[in-house]
Amino acid sequence: MVDFTAKHAALLERALQAIGERTYWSAYPESPSPKVYGETAKDEQEAAFKALLGKPFDIPGHPAGGPATGGEISPYGPTLGVTYPTAAKLQGLTDASLRAMDDWADASPETRAGVLIEVIERLNRQSFLIANAVMHTSGQAFMMAFQAGGPHAQDRALEAVAYAVAEQRRVPRPARWEKPQGKGEPIRLEKSWRIVPKGLGLVIGCATFPTWNTYPGLFASLATGNPVIVKPHPAAILPAAISIRIAREVIKEAGFDPNILLLAADSAEKPITKKLAQLPEIEIIDYTGSTAFGEWLRMTLPEKQIYAEEAGVNAIVVAGASNFRAMCDNIAFSLSLYSGQMCTAPQNIFVPRGGVETDEGKKSFAEVGAAIASAIDRLLSDPARAQAVLGAIQNPATLKRVAQARKLGDVIRDSAPVEGAGEARTASPILVAVKARDLDAYTEERFGPIAFLVACADAKDAVMQASLSIFQRGAITAALYATDETLIGHAEKAFARAGVNLSVNLTGNIFVNQSAAFSDFHATGANPASNATLTDPAFVANRFRVVAVRRMAA
Amino acid sequence: MVDFTAKHAALLERALQAIGERTYWSAYPESPSPKVYGETAKDEQEAAFKALLGKPFDIPGHPAGGPATGGEISPYGPTLGVTYPTAAKLQGLTDASLRAMDDWADASPETRAGVLIEVIERLNRQSFLIANAVMHTSGQAFMMAFQAGGPHAQDRALEAVAYAVAEQRRVPRPARWEKPQGKGEPIRLEKSWRIVPKGLGLVIGCATFPTWNTYPGLFASLATGNPVIVKPHPAAILPAAISIRIAREVIKEAGFDPNILLLAADSAEKPITKKLAQLPEIEIIDYTGSTAFGEWLRMTLPEKQIYAEEAGVNAIVVAGASNFRAMCDNIAFSLSLYSGQMCTAPQNIFVPRGGVETDEGKKSFAEVGAAIASAIDRLLSDPARAQAVLGAIQNPATLKRVAQARKLGDVIRDSAPVEGAGEARTASPILVAVKARDLDAYTEERFGPIAFLVACADAKDAVMQASLSIFQRGAITAALYATDETLIGHAEKAFARAGVNLSVNLTGNIFVNQSAAFSDFHATGANPASNATLTDPAFVANRFRVVAVRRMAA
Repeated sequence: MVDFTAKHAALLERALQAIGERTYWSAYPESPSPKVYGETAKDEQEAAFKALLGKPFDIPGHPAGGPATGGEISPYGPTLGVTYPTAAKLQGLTDASLRAMDDWADASPETRAGVLIEVIERLNRQSFLIANAVMHTSGQAFMMAFQAGGPHAQDRALEAVAYAVAEQRRVPRPARWEKPQGKGEPIRLEKSWRIVPKGLGLVIGCATFPTWNTYPGLFASLATGNPVIVKPHPAAILPAAISIRIAREVIKEAGFDPNILLLAADSAEKPITKKLAQLPEIEIIDYTGSTAFGEWLRMTLPEKQIYAEEAGVNAIVVAGASNFRAMCDNIAFSLSLYSGQMCTAPQNIFVPRGGVETDEGKKSFAEVGAAIASAIDRLLSDPARAQAVLGAIQNPATLKRVAQARKLGDVIRDSAPVEGAGEARTASPILVAVKARDLDAYTEERFGPIAFLVACADAKDAVMQASLSIFQRGAITAALYATDETLIGHAEKAFARAGVNLSVNLTGNIFVNQSAAFSDFHATGANPASNATLTDPAFVANRFRVVAVRRMAA
Repeated sequence: MVDFTAKHAALLERALQAIGERTYWSAYPESPSPKVYGETAKDEQEAAFKALLGKPFDIPGHPAGGPATGGEISPYGPTLGVTYPTAAKLQGLTDASLRAMDDWADASPETRAGVLIEVIERLNRQSFLIANAVMHTSGQAFMMAFQAGGPHAQDRALEAVAYAVAEQRRVPRPARWEKPQGKGEPIRLEKSWRIVPKGLGLVIGCATFPTWNTYPGLFASLATGNPVIVKPHPAAILPAAISIRIAREVIKEAGFDPNILLLAADSAEKPITKKLAQLPEIEIIDYTGSTAFGEWLRMTLPEKQIYAEEAGVNAIVVAGASNFRAMCDNIAFSLSLYSGQMCTAPQNIFVPRGGVETDEGKKSFAEVGAAIASAIDRLLSDPARAQAVLGAIQNPATLKRVAQARKLGDVIRDSAPVEGAGEARTASPILVAVKARDLDAYTEERFGPIAFLVACADAKDAVMQASLSIFQRGAITAALYATDETLIGHAEKAFARAGVNLSVNLTGNIFVNQSAAFSDFHATGANPASNATLTDPAFVANRFRVVAVRRMAA
């Protein structure tokens, strides 16, 4: 049997260094280059993806007995036709998890980390397979599906493992406790501490980032000794199923019961999430999705440890620009990338109604809107590039929201399907001008390629309106364009109070949407959009507990 | 202005070392010796305590305007007659907290730690004053009131500060992030992170350990930047009020608004805890008390971060003894100390019904019970010692529970008041024999000097019944007496699965009730008696969040 702990010890230490420093580091190359991933990987794995379609997906040794489920349809058109095993009863899943738990719980943190890093390495080798599965469930364009679904998600997984190891290493080593007793013999106790897992973990995935948002909770719970059941979004089961199958192979090779990691697939027609989450054996829930369901989880299950990422209203404040054109290009790309379906995509752009000073002179509110609209047009003028940037719309309901958005204010730029995209469901960004007092329009998350240009009294008011909307409704990202350092300092404080991460004056090939593992904490847990971050010590510290034995010393 | 950070830097580093090693260390001497605390401290501070009685308790600068409250009666007899300021409206407290928050939140973790360690040092100098206040509210005997209410509580406070500093030091320093771009210039971002407090902390105290159980949450929340409102038990306000007054003096000296620490006193007749806890500004709640109220908090306020210590059924398994007499003496003391009113006091003693092997030969179930009963009698035979060990009964309801316990099985040793205790409310331990199947009798916490000898099939069954009762009903402590190493290993695993700390073969001057700061984690958070421990990283990690600013590098 391969010693995965020894094999991956250096990588683990490097990851531990990275989470401390948070400078740039990545374990898994984001370029889908044949030089990195092999000359044949792309074609072979695309073929492997196609071979999965229209068939039952086999997960050896997985609890089964219920009717197979699965109804995924690619946002690019085709029905996937893959069906997944289900347990005869949900209790069958938790029973299998509990049976598998003890050996895994008794393993050392380093042993678990070794096994899990081997899992991540094998996921990395299958990045093209996973990219195809992510693309044809989420609707992401291929390059993004590869990067965000593959190496970036794998980096987030490794990051979670590193935090779990760091946290478990803080559990004290055996200690001798000697309490002086004046002139008498000291009292001597031998003390030792043991890590006990919290219980079963449930990871509830989303349809837009079926691996990136699933891996952190999955790996954090497994790394701290808890078995995990993954309940993917019914529209994006395949990326999770592939990941689980790969992981179970490694877990079995390492001598553990693969049922520490299970799939709970369901369909939109027969959802199982509420029933599953309510099973008393489930102690930890990682959730990404709507605020309505997140609230149900938090209100119904107060006894469970819930890590949730929900809706928010990401904001940009435009108070001034030293490179107006570069700013507009940057914002245009942020609005367009994956058709605004990133949880980090901006929705609201707060601009002084009197306009802003820029390197191109004073720009009125209308001119700012027009310039961003032009930048979007420029970016998407070539249909091939438009498809590569926008991808497809994951959920048909998003198109309805785009249509509704037209009525919410003055349309500066309208949404349209992408030319030549064939069967794919596509929509370019709509940009709507509103006033700061039109709270009903913009202080609700309108998921998809929908953005608002919000007219504010002045720059300070723009910062205030933006940070207030975030304080009240949550956000995962905020951005500021400004040249006045006093205003920047003021904004840094205001957004900090609102509990959101702030990006200042981004131009060029870096965007507010992007969150880099090992450097950026994703979400903050400090506003209504999330109660946790990916990943910090708090994300792992309460997934396990510590119990002591103290004995009279001989 | 004194630089408290510099003044206490060495002590803080020593405490940080201690929480890593968890060998014996204590910052504050537990001996009330004149050599340590000064020749005059005891008398002067007893006089200071008496001078507080029968008067309004003044807290300079504290929100007031409501009717003064306070109805504490010493378990030793006298009415204290102290009244405390209240705000005109509860909202007045949270408003004052919020106004005071920003400067404290903006201070560095090291600055906050320096101020708080100065607070602890001054609390230490007033240990006799606090001891008198603890004694005459909790009913603890003087020595225990001094140790547990003074230096031991102060150690727990320092421990919480140390964990808070350790956790905040893990927040990354400013970093430059350089992402390579092939042959092009790398993307460069300057990133920095800022600690933001979670919000207002509420600490709900208990009547039995009004400082020991209050300080950890209080200091953990303050050290991470959150203002704190303390809601003491209406029967034990004075120890909290004295502590708060001392702390506010230091906070003011350090240049901060003392309203970061407020008192919310109430009476049993007009309780305010529910209303206070429900105020939306309260984000963190530290609670020690009944399971019923704890459940109300957890179920009603799922959005708040709650650290709770509730009821449990602490257990001892007697499977064998290499020093039978010493074991019985040790158990007798654990049952008698503060009349079983410690959250760590054993309630259930599981013994094989066929008896156990000991150094004095085989002892039957009845003989084990009789020997423990005799040991209690021996310990309490001298009335002065009995008073010093038992203290007084904090709550009259405890006497009713003792009376009810007589009907729950065969009384091996009955409870009785202490001879010559005057006005004090006293009761020695009752020991009742029951069968393992009498679950209604012993699997409910019967707080006070009430213990059960539970007859089990054999040693393994005793371990099973004990760990099962803890798994289901919770416990803060468990103990085992055994000579068979196989059984000890088995029990270590069983109690770990039940999520409880285990003490093995304690004899002499160390007891299962005792939990030493800087070495023992108090409670585990892994069974129904608590969802957190005093103190570990998880106890502080989520009291603050981190927000980032990232800027294009120049």
